[in-house]
Amino acid sequence: MFDDFKLNEDKPYYLQVKDYVKELILKGIIQADTRLPSTRELSKILGVSRNTIIEAYNYLEDEGFIYQRKAKGYFVSKIQKHEKKSYRINWRERVTNLAILSDKLDITKHEARWEKGMISFKSISPDPNIFDIDELKRAFLSRISIEEGKILNYGYAKGYRPLIDEIKKYLKLKGISLDGKDVLITNGYTEALNLVLNAVVEKDDVVLCENPTHSTAINIMKLKGLNLRPIDIEDYGLNTDMLEEKIKKSNPKFLYLTPSYHNPTGVVFSPENRLKILDITRMYKIPIIEDGFNEELRYYSSHILPLAALDEGNSIIYISSFSKVLFPGLRIGWILADEELINYIESLKRSLNIHTSFLDQAILYEYLNGGNLEKYINKVKRIYRDKFEWALECAKKYIPHKRILGEGGLHLFLELNRASSRDVLKECLKKNVIFTPGDIFYIDEKGKNTLRLGISRVTNEEIERGFKIIGDVVKKMEGLE
Amino acid sequence: MFDDFKLNEDKPYYLQVKDYVKELILKGIIQADTRLPSTRELSKILGVSRNTIIEAYNYLEDEGFIYQRKAKGYFVSKIQKHEKKSYRINWRERVTNLAILSDKLDITKHEARWEKGMISFKSISPDPNIFDIDELKRAFLSRISIEEGKILNYGYAKGYRPLIDEIKKYLKLKGISLDGKDVLITNGYTEALNLVLNAVVEKDDVVLCENPTHSTAINIMKLKGLNLRPIDIEDYGLNTDMLEEKIKKSNPKFLYLTPSYHNPTGVVFSPENRLKILDITRMYKIPIIEDGFNEELRYYSSHILPLAALDEGNSIIYISSFSKVLFPGLRIGWILADEELINYIESLKRSLNIHTSFLDQAILYEYLNGGNLEKYINKVKRIYRDKFEWALECAKKYIPHKRILGEGGLHLFLELNRASSRDVLKECLKKNVIFTPGDIFYIDEKGKNTLRLGISRVTNEEIERGFKIIGDVVKKMEGLE
Repeated sequence: MFDDFKLNEDKPYYLQVKDYVKELILKGIIQADTRLPSTRELSKILGVSRNTIIEAYNYLEDEGFIYQRKAKGYFVSKIQKHEKKSYRINWRERVTNLAILSDKLDITKHEARWEKGMISFKSISPDPNIFDIDELKRAFLSRISIEEGKILNYGYAKGYRPLIDEIKKYLKLKGISLDGKDVLITNGYTEALNLVLNAVVEKDDVVLCENPTHSTAINIMKLKGLNLRPIDIEDYGLNTDMLEEKIKKSNPKFLYLTPSYHNPTGVVFSPENRLKILDITRMYKIPIIEDGFNEELRYYSSHILPLAALDEGNSIIYISSFSKVLFPGLRIGWILADEELINYIESLKRSLNIHTSFLDQAILYEYLNGGNLEKYINKVKRIYRDKFEWALECAKKYIPHKRILGEGGLHLFLELNRASSRDVLKECLKKNVIFTPGDIFYIDEKGKNTLRLGISRVTNEEIERGFKIIGDVVKKMEGLE
Repeated sequence: MFDDFKLNEDKPYYLQVKDYVKELILKGIIQADTRLPSTRELSKILGVSRNTIIEAYNYLEDEGFIYQRKAKGYFVSKIQKHEKKSYRINWRERVTNLAILSDKLDITKHEARWEKGMISFKSISPDPNIFDIDELKRAFLSRISIEEGKILNYGYAKGYRPLIDEIKKYLKLKGISLDGKDVLITNGYTEALNLVLNAVVEKDDVVLCENPTHSTAINIMKLKGLNLRPIDIEDYGLNTDMLEEKIKKSNPKFLYLTPSYHNPTGVVFSPENRLKILDITRMYKIPIIEDGFNEELRYYSSHILPLAALDEGNSIIYISSFSKVLFPGLRIGWILADEELINYIESLKRSLNIHTSFLDQAILYEYLNGGNLEKYINKVKRIYRDKFEWALECAKKYIPHKRILGEGGLHLFLELNRASSRDVLKECLKKNVIFTPGDIFYIDEKGKNTLRLGISRVTNEEIERGFKIIGDVVKKMEGLE
């Protein structure tokens, strides 16, 4: 006994001694009512100071693991045991349909995994090497010195007030009117969409949805049991003829759109297309959930107002986050909507997780308030645009395609002439190159010959080398070689 | 124009000029194709350097708000407008039943609100003045210097690996076997319970529930449409006769328990009661959701193993957080369960909000790893215990009661002889004293004469003064005065 004790430098020694003795007691190696070595003895055995042992014994006594008998020393308390008449449950048979569907739709679980040496075009998350860490540290230290413990205690479901106000200012500068509207802070865009759907749609409701669209959005809507009807995305935006036709046919509850930088195609809905969409939805009184995805990373087009800025009513619910540009690990997004609707969503949020981390909200507030986001976007736009242009050039040169879509962001979206992107992926995987097959972005059976190539986490050299490999596989499959 | 410009010190001047001009454009005050003042002119008008204006104009051009004409200067771009044919939606009529129920059950929204000058016994959140802020700062700076940008990027749905391992160590030292089990990190206890329920119960399922219990748990289970059957809490723990009877009658899917420091009563289930509960649930193969609420803040009883430590099977789902002791603003909790079940919950978590803030998880990991939690609990236990004992003394002295329950934590739970606690609250409110009426913790119509008195956020003096006021109201109502 006591011969396998090892110290490390991370933790005070007395806590390590405490944990060590506790484990011996819990495992039954030291039995109940056994006398423990005296503090002097144990100090010799373990090679630590006597004070360390005294402190450790104090903690153990405090936690009820040992007790003292006057003049006789320390003894082990009775630790309750139970005969092991335990039974096993087959959880596979017990879980809900929701859990099963959620596991089935979980793209991350089922897709080709990155391994060392691979070139992966799967990720569209920002490059962490260009994050502004010094400013973030400064924001943390400054906020915590102002707020102290308050920021670490329970807060409000709607969010941290200064951050809410900062986001309102930010939305105002996108031309959005805030009259009668309110903002609620969420754990990222994903939670924002979940909350909105919980508030406005019931199972089996019909929802119109751009096709293709954000795969996460598709999955969330499927998990809510919604009846999704696809509307095609064209080069200029949403196919409005199809929109009107489907509204007439299906009496939808909602239209879901990502007009400002469409994921995955990268299409930016044209000004005329935006107005047309608004005219139609107004005529039929169909509310819109507008996803502000990546508005900040458009490289070329002139300023385009979000739908929420083109409407003076209260029928547009605008959700967004900075996660494609800034610190996605912080998980902060928001919902802008009619204040009465936000009032309902506030209760839903409270019942889900009380509120989003107040520490993270406070850090983000401080960061935004100092103008860092704008400076940062200004910097990274150049970096990402250069990479985007390089990738576009390489794609045109090496990969036979029908169309390449996109006006910015951290990825390209390709339509191949004939080859199935799943088949291409299978071959590329053998050559250590992976990407996201485009079919996961489609509600229907379309998109089999499309793929998304994320470029934010690869070097220019990897882009060229990887695209060549993809191109060679495509050529071979399409009989061009 | 340009005469209401004001500078503040928080943000670089050029960004303030940029935002100012942008607002003038968005509001239509400067019209499309108007020439802007030259940089020299505007610098004079606004009283900032010419470089500031140049930089501001660069940003505006980059964002597409202005354009340059050679040798002619800067002009305003066309900002798309729309005729305001907007319509209004009556969201009250459009929201889901879930949203309506969630609003109705939202205790925070409907309870008596704190106002300046009041003594509030509502809160049971920790006292932020005793948080260990220096250690938290150290944890942040140390982790971010090790992880850098990585910790700010997307992470994994299950959680931050080092934190998962740290929590596993922590659970092992509670005597819990981890064989075949896994841990998933959540946004606090509230999300943990939501996720578990999403995985294991469907609408209308029967769930057995200690009565009274945590009001948040009741609300979450009601929002899932569960059929709750109450089982009485006695001084020693759960009424096991009633447990067996209800199992036989109702074929429940689950039993929900908070055995180690019951909220709101503060009862700690006795060792014998724990074994009896396990014997019965094993016999009928009923899984248990064990809520580890406030295990850390028991002041007196010797060490008691959680149910999860007394079972070698896989039928106990243990959920907990440190939020009643440590930094609740961070919103971190966890689920310990069978690894197959965790695998399903992982997909549910991903679909809900991708993952919990990696920054917060990393900070908490670093804090725990240094042994700070144990040191902190050791310190605050003394502070809270002194307060608890003072409160107990005051309650006994001033408030006529049938029972006072509780062996620790941050509150007392009182049963009055006759008076309704809602009526008492109404009178107390007039005298600027508020507390939580106990009925919100009951699934059935019981508990009308109970109240919870949170003591963590009030001084000893306020406890004495407040309890006197409550006591006087009770005496008057019960005709004792």
